[in-house]
Order: sequence, then C-alpha cells, then structure tokens
Amino acid sequence: MTETVTAAILVIGDEILSGRTKDRNVGYIAEYLTKAGVELQEARVVPDVEDEIVAAVNALRGRYDYVFTTGGIGPTHDDITADAIAAAFGVEIGEDPRALAIMGERYKPDELTPARRRMARIPAGATLIDNPVSKAPGFRLGNVIVMAGVPSVMQAMLDDAILGVKTGTPVLNAAVEADNLPEGVYGEALREIAEARPAVSIGSYPSYRDGKFRNQIVVRTKDAAALAEAKAAVEAMVGKLQGDGRPL
Amino acid sequence: MTETVTAAILVIGDEILSGRTKDRNVGYIAEYLTKAGVELQEARVVPDVEDEIVAAVNALRGRYDYVFTTGGIGPTHDDITADAIAAAFGVEIGEDPRALAIMGERYKPDELTPARRRMARIPAGATLIDNPVSKAPGFRLGNVIVMAGVPSVMQAMLDDAILGVKTGTPVLNAAVEADNLPEGVYGEALREIAEARPAVSIGSYPSYRDGKFRNQIVVRTKDAAALAEAKAAVEAMVGKLQGDGRPL
Repeated sequence: MTETVTAAILVIGDEILSGRTKDRNVGYIAEYLTKAGVELQEARVVPDVEDEIVAAVNALRGRYDYVFTTGGIGPTHDDITADAIAAAFGVEIGEDPRALAIMGERYKPDELTPARRRMARIPAGATLIDNPVSKAPGFRLGNVIVMAGVPSVMQAMLDDAILGVKTGTPVLNAAVEADNLPEGVYGEALREIAEARPAVSIGSYPSYRDGKFRNQIVVRTKDAAALAEAKAAVEAMVGKLQGDGRPL
Repeated sequence: MTETVTAAILVIGDEILSGRTKDRNVGYIAEYLTKAGVELQEARVVPDVEDEIVAAVNALRGRYDYVFTTGGIGPTHDDITADAIAAAFGVEIGEDPRALAIMGERYKPDELTPARRRMARIPAGATLIDNPVSKAPGFRLGNVIVMAGVPSVMQAMLDDAILGVKTGTPVLNAAVEADNLPEGVYGEALREIAEARPAVSIGSYPSYRDGKFRNQIVVRTKDAAALAEAKAAVEAMVGKLQGDGRPL
C-alpha cells in the first residue's frame, strides 16, 4: 500500500522575475521532498505584490497537501510575505512574543530596530520554524510553510519544517545512460516499454555539452521490484540498439 | 511615455519537479526579457500531464502578453507539449510539412524515425521558431512561444522568437552595495526612501556567503533620471549609516 503526499513551492520575489537573482531553492526543495516521500507537483514564482501572493497561496493550499514558500520574510519594506499569508487565511497578524524572544537571543534591546521587529510579525495561529542561521523564525500556518529566501537560511528552516510534515512512500528512481544513442533512435522502443508499464513513469532527458547530446532514461516508481524490472527492460533495449550500431 | 509588455514562463517537465534536473531556463529567460523590455510577471513549473499543461497555458495566456514555455518538444513518448498546446487552443495538430523539410536538412529519409517525426507535429496556425542547434523547430501559436528544454537549444530559439515579440520600455536598474550594514539597520530609512518614490521599485537582497550576510539594494524604474536620483538617495543613506559606525 503506497501513500501519496503532495506539495507545491511558491517562490516570492521580484528579484527572481527580473533575473537579477537566480533561484536555487526550487531545485533544492524538489530534491529534498522527493527523498522525503513528498511529491512536488507544481512550483510558481510571483512578485512582491500582496494580491498575487494571496491568490497563489490560496490556489495552491487548496490543491496540495503542503505549500512551501520562500522569500519575503526579511526586515525591509519589500518583505510582505507574512502579511500576505495572514490575508490569505483571513487571520490577524502582529508581533509574536515567541519570535521576539528568539530574536532577543541575537539582538540587544537597542538593536531591535523597527525594521528587525517586522521579522517578529507572525500570523495568528502559526507555529514557528527554527532558524539556526540568523534567528528570525519562519512559520507554518495550516498547510503552508513559510521560509526565508536566502538558500542557507531556507535549507536550515526546511530541516525543521520537515519534522512536522506527513510523508508518503518515497518515489524510487534509476537512471540508464544512453549516451551514444539519439532519442530519435530509441524513442519508439522506449514508448513500448513505457506503455507496457503504466504504473512506472519513464522519461528521457537529453542534455547538451561540448557540442554533443547526452541522454539519460529515468525510471520512477514507488515499487522496488517494478523499478528493477523496468530498468532491466530499458537497459536491454539500449544494449540491443547500441549493438546494432546503425540507426533504427 | 512608457509602454509595458508582460510575460510569463511555463516550465514543463517531471524532471524539474523531482529535483533530478535543476532548471536554468527561468533565470536566463528572466534576464533576457528584462533587457529586451518585457516584464516577466510570473513563472510556473508543471509536470508532463496534459491537463496540467492545458490549464496553465490557458490561465497564463489570458493574463499576460506572452507566454514562453520550455520543455516537452522532443521525440520521446513523454514529450507532450505540442499536443497540449493544440488542446489548449482547441486546434488540430499533425505533421507539419515545413518542419519535416527543416528536419530533412539534418536527417536522411531512413533516419526520420517515427519518434523523430513526432518533433514535426505542430499545431495548426503556428509559425515555426528556428533551431540552429538541432533543427527540430519550436513554434509560436497566438501569444504562446514554445521552446525546447535543453538550455542551449532554448537559448537559440529565444534569439529567434524575440524578433516577433513586441517590446516595451526596458526597466533600468542600479545596485548599491551595503555589505557592512545589516538590513535591520537600514530597513526603516530605506522604507522612507521607497515610500517617497512610489514610481521607483526598491528592493533589498541579502545573500549569505562565508558566514556573512552581504546586502544589495536594487533600484528599478524605466526613467533614467528617477533611477539616478533614487540611487543617489540610497547611496547617501548607506554612506551616512556606515559613517555612524553604530546600530541605528
């Protein structure tokens, strides 16, 4: 019996959409959730605009078991994620004594500027997420997990947040290298293998380096026996075509 | 008089959501469009599932001037983007003689396997997008521009696709380094600068390297004079706080 737990990622930040900052969080969270047995089914990037954040949060939290957000919880005026999450859930937001106490471990009272106190604004009913890197916490409200945008801080928060997340049966995967075979040569044979195994997901992924395409065929399923069987079928197909030494 | 042209990116592919492949296309396209005068306002990643692709394409193409998609136009069974785009627009799809002719420049007739012929499936009414890297073309249907997922191929297609895209006034930007000032120290002063300049977008972006936060304040506007004025105001604020040598 396998169980499926689903998730979406919501990246919040103008700097990603302008191209100035290159997102590294989606790839990290995707890999992390896959290993943990949570299936990432969608990711979105939206700007620092409250209506956009609210609409995306509400679309995603109704559809998936969890929503992981990154970005917009710092001390400056463009950090509006906490307020947007409160608006999305229709709850109050204000300075949270628990968050202020945690920040008090890092900042002296006269260092707790109005800007820094903004980082203690937490929606009512949320639980805090630990931030060992720079103290100011993330939070979880309902099924929405709100984390920082700076990758090292986000990664530390994710380690804490995952402890409260229900996980399903992890999806296993195996890759078969098909470096010297073009996709156009094995495409039909691979389709037959895939169609005969509807419970196994099979994908073909070309990359291009040094003027040459390299292909990987990736087999994904939660069932270890089905994984081994499908991988063997792909390997046999690849081996046969390589042995042929001619285009199909 | 400034003109705004908007866009969204739709990344299509299970391999991005599983974390196996790390997307590099969103960052590239974002930077490219910004320079060209097109404002990227949203990005989404969806799996290789037709209904999901159709829903996302239809949501995005109605809302933005352009939608740029990447991924899913190769020769294997998991490449379903062209069919999904046809379904989204409610048009027919079949082998396109123009695409077959282009692919004939690369492949001999007996190399045009059924898998490769899949890459000539183009929705009715689409114009082709040139692919100098590996021939099989992308296409544009209405305001949706469909490109490959392999970065080098996508980048070449984007160079062709951009020629047919209406561009607006480019957003200019300038960055002020605030490396030795924490965001929590300048946050309130920066808010005042931002609130006094509603037509200028001002963001503060921390990054964390070698155990230290580094902050950049980025000013964005289409107006060169407003950019210079706002940048000078930020620089004066940063200079003053650095001179103080003490927490605000």
